[in-house]
Amino acid sequence: MAAASQKGGPVITGIGDDCAILRPPAGHELLVTTDFSLEGVHFRREWHPPESVGHRCLTRGLSDIAAMGGQPLAVFLSLALPPDLPQSWVDRFYRGLLKLARRHQAILAGGDTAQSHSGILADIMVIGSVPRGKAILRSGARPGDRIFVTGKLGLGGASVRRLFGGERLRAAGDYFYPTPRLEVGAKLRGLASAMIDISDGLSTDLAHICTESRVGAIVHQAAIPIAPTATLDDALHGGDDYELLFTSSKRVLREIAGVPVSEIGEIVNGSDVRIQDERGRSKRLRSEGWQHFSQ
Amino acid sequence: MAAASQKGGPVITGIGDDCAILRPPAGHELLVTTDFSLEGVHFRREWHPPESVGHRCLTRGLSDIAAMGGQPLAVFLSLALPPDLPQSWVDRFYRGLLKLARRHQAILAGGDTAQSHSGILADIMVIGSVPRGKAILRSGARPGDRIFVTGKLGLGGASVRRLFGGERLRAAGDYFYPTPRLEVGAKLRGLASAMIDISDGLSTDLAHICTESRVGAIVHQAAIPIAPTATLDDALHGGDDYELLFTSSKRVLREIAGVPVSEIGEIVNGSDVRIQDERGRSKRLRSEGWQHFSQ
Repeated sequence: MAAASQKGGPVITGIGDDCAILRPPAGHELLVTTDFSLEGVHFRREWHPPESVGHRCLTRGLSDIAAMGGQPLAVFLSLALPPDLPQSWVDRFYRGLLKLARRHQAILAGGDTAQSHSGILADIMVIGSVPRGKAILRSGARPGDRIFVTGKLGLGGASVRRLFGGERLRAAGDYFYPTPRLEVGAKLRGLASAMIDISDGLSTDLAHICTESRVGAIVHQAAIPIAPTATLDDALHGGDDYELLFTSSKRVLREIAGVPVSEIGEIVNGSDVRIQDERGRSKRLRSEGWQHFSQ
Repeated sequence: MAAASQKGGPVITGIGDDCAILRPPAGHELLVTTDFSLEGVHFRREWHPPESVGHRCLTRGLSDIAAMGGQPLAVFLSLALPPDLPQSWVDRFYRGLLKLARRHQAILAGGDTAQSHSGILADIMVIGSVPRGKAILRSGARPGDRIFVTGKLGLGGASVRRLFGGERLRAAGDYFYPTPRLEVGAKLRGLASAMIDISDGLSTDLAHICTESRVGAIVHQAAIPIAPTATLDDALHGGDDYELLFTSSKRVLREIAGVPVSEIGEIVNGSDVRIQDERGRSKRLRSEGWQHFSQ
C-alpha cells in the first residue's frame, strides 16, 4: 500500500497483518458502508484532479456514516491501478483522501491493492459507530413530520452538466471537495425521525425514505435551496451533492453546526411523492436519480 | 443488489439503509479484511465456473479471518458488472458465495453495485471477531518455535499451470472450492504464536512472518506436504492454497478439526529464511509469490 500504516484510537493493528483489529467504543453499534469510485463511471482523469478523486472517494463513505448520525472510526481502501499510471497521480490521490480522513479522525487501517487492466478502480469502506440504538434509519418518517435538507442542492448536477459541455472547471464551489455533514448528522440524533444523504438526487433519495417509511411526501418547490449556477432540475435530480435529507416532528434550527438547514415540505399518508408550486398546483415528483458519467 | 437482504445475529440492519448496523459480541475485538477478485487478474470467465468465482471471492476474505483465529460476522460485497453480462452468471456467482457464507454463519449485510466498462470487478470485505487480545498476529514467532502448515500445498499453483497449459479442469480437488480453515484457526488461539494464510505461496508468506517477527526460519524440504499433481515448486511458490501457516512452542496435534497438520521447520535467530534438503544441505528460500494470472 502506498500510504503509510496508521493506527491509534480504535485501531489496534492496522496495515501489515491478515486483518486489521478494531476495538469499537463501549456501548456503541457499528456502521459499515462500501462505495465504488470507478474511472469513467464516477470520475474522469481529465476532469477531476487526483486530490479531488481521493477526497470524493472518501466523502462517499463518510456521507453514509453522517446519514446514520454516526462518527467514522476506520477506513479501508481497495485500489486497483493501471500499470502505466504515474506514481504522482497515486500520491496526490492519497493526499486528498488522507487530508479529509484526518479532518474527521478516520484512520486508514487497511485495504487491498491490485493491478487493473482498465482504469483506476477504488472501493472505499468506512466503519463508523453510533451509540447503541441511536442510529437514524430511513424508515422512521411519520405523517406530519417536516422534511429538511442541509446546505444547497444542485451543485453536483450543474458541475457535471458544465463538464459534459466542455468547460474546464477549476474552482467549482465545493464540487471537487464536498464536505460530508458528519457534525450535523451527529447533532440530529434524537431530533431526526429519518435521514439519508443526497448522493443520488433529492427526488430519488426522498423516494427511498418514503418507501422505507411507507409514507408519502409533498415538497414545496419554492423552498428548495438551489446552489448558485444550478437549476431546479439539478437540485431535484442532480445527485452527488452529499447534503443530508431528514424528517422531524420537532422544532429544527435554521442552522446546525454552521450549516444552513431548509424546511422543504412534509410527510403525508399514502405513498406518493409530490411537488407543489407557489400557486398550490402539485404534480408527482418522479425519481430521476443521477446516472453517473456513462454516456 | 441481486442477493436478498439478510439480517440476523450481529447484523441489526442489513441492505437497504445508508449503512449496515452491526452489534459485535461483547468482549470481542473486530477483524476487518478486504480483497479484490478482478476478472483477468484473479479469475477468468473461461476457466472458472461462476459458482467458483463467488466461492473463491469469499474464501479470500474468510481465510484472512481464519489466519487471525477469528470467526466471521458479516460480509460486504462491492460488485461492478459489464452491461452485457448474463443475469445467470450473476445468479450463479451469488449462489457459490452465499452457500459458503451460510456454511460459516457469515451474513451478507451490504455492499455496492456499479456498471463496469471492463470485466467483472468484485471487492469482498469480511468483518469478523475474536475475543479481546486473542488475535493471532504475524509478529509473535520466537526462535525455537516450530513451523506448521495445514493440509497440502501446491494445488493452486499446479491448477493454474494446467489451466495455462490449455487443460480444461473440471474436478481439480479443492482448487475451485477451497475450504477456508476457520475451525482450525479458532482452535489455534492460545497455541499458535504467529499465523498467516498461504494465499501468496509458502515462500512469500513465511517471509512475512519472519519480517514481522524479526526472526529467521529453516524449512525441511522433505516435510513439506505436497498436494497430488503438484511439484515442490508449486508447494513453495504457488499461492492460492488458503491453508494456514503457523508457529508454536507447544505440542501441536497431527490433526486439528479433521485437517492434517504438518511440522515443516523451525524459527531461528537472524532474518534468513532457508530450506534444507534431506542430506542437510541448505540454501536461501527466496520469496517468489504468486503473481496472479496477468500475462
